[in-house]
Amino acid sequence: MKSHTVTLTMNVPTRMDFVNITQEVEKAVRESGVAEGLCLVNAMHITASVFINDDEPGLHRDYKRWLEQLAPFDASPERYQHNRTGEDNADAHHKRQIMGREVVVGITSGKLHFGPWEQIFYGEFDGRRPKRILIKIIGE
Amino acid sequence: MKSHTVTLTMNVPTRMDFVNITQEVEKAVRESGVAEGLCLVNAMHITASVFINDDEPGLHRDYKRWLEQLAPFDASPERYQHNRTGEDNADAHHKRQIMGREVVVGITSGKLHFGPWEQIFYGEFDGRRPKRILIKIIGE
Amino acid sequence: MKSHTVTLTMNVPTRMDFVNITQEVEKAVRESGVAEGLCLVNAMHITASVFINDDEPGLHRDYKRWLEQLAPFDASPERYQHNRTGEDNADAHHKRQIMGREVVVGITSGKLHFGPWEQIFYGEFDGRRPKRILIKIIGE
Repeated sequence: MKSHTVTLTMNVPTRMDFVNITQEVEKAVRESGVAEGLCLVNAMHITASVFINDDEPGLHRDYKRWLEQLAPFDASPERYQHNRTGEDNADAHHKRQIMGREVVVGITSGKLHFGPWEQIFYGEFDGRRPKRILIKIIGE
Repeated sequence: MKSHTVTLTMNVPTRMDFVNITQEVEKAVRESGVAEGLCLVNAMHITASVFINDDEPGLHRDYKRWLEQLAPFDASPERYQHNRTGEDNADAHHKRQIMGREVVVGITSGKLHFGPWEQIFYGEFDGRRPKRILIKIIGE
Repeated sequence: MKSHTVTLTMNVPTRMDFVNITQEVEKAVRESGVAEGLCLVNAMHITASVFINDDEPGLHRDYKRWLEQLAPFDASPERYQHNRTGEDNADAHHKRQIMGREVVVGITSGKLHFGPWEQIFYGEFDGRRPKRILIKIIGE
């Protein structure tokens, strides 16, 4: 069994944004030498997501508006008890649960086994500081 | 290490519906010859889900109503910017994020290691055309 | 390839609560002898979740309030058709979809490959009875 481990560091300049990391994951799969296996990609921080969806700017704007409706940013300690700790990012912990922590992608014949439109995104909900992503590949 | 790869093609005649695919996944596990390992099952399309829950028609109707409340179908370009691209399926991209893209199931003694009620479903949110599911099994 | 399988039994005395199971998962990883691999942790019941987030009581209270807004408990058969079966836990099946069924964590150098704040939680949405979690580790 082979394994390969890569961490990416993201530094998103805004509070919320989505970054396409598909090419970085494809590079890690090539480096791994794995032909058949599984590739885990996860946010290492709990106010961020890794998810698979469409690389379409209108959809990303829709997601941001929708997530803001489901879990609005509110730094006050009234709406979110988490913000009584001195944090202001309780909303980000909620948004991350909707969009998910991780994806697991099959590797077949040395490539990410994707459908026609699948792209991997880092979803940042409390940016403006460096945060990490883990890529862990196992297989043969 | 063994690996086994299967794709299923789904053709759901309505916009939204859930299809029990547990038997197809069990068949793939038997074919794989894997006794101990992991089984990834994921939608290959970004307006569909694979999830594990109960095979109970009332619950499925509840899910549909709830997802319609959280992310209503609306083909107009007003509610969803994604629909300015000529698509009408922005709601489906949102519903899929709630229900998830994939499940990973343990394989123990050659079988899906399930609790008493776990069943695997394909969740379609923009049907009426063929779409694919990936089953990727690794183990020994 | 090595594999290791552990089931935990949870008995949460309230309907909804979150329990930190990180130490139990770390113990299973040590027992496995796996240095490089993947660790799946999933709820074996369909009214419960396993998720990764912050071990902060205020945030957990926020999550409970938020989940109650998104999918309120209502034992009557009017709001949820699932409760026409004699069950009263339809809300729990919805809450579990928001928080997710499972996490997959990388194992590097014999340890869970975690970011600074990642902790694994069991999320119970229909407690007051024993329910199980599966830990499945594969690697080398």
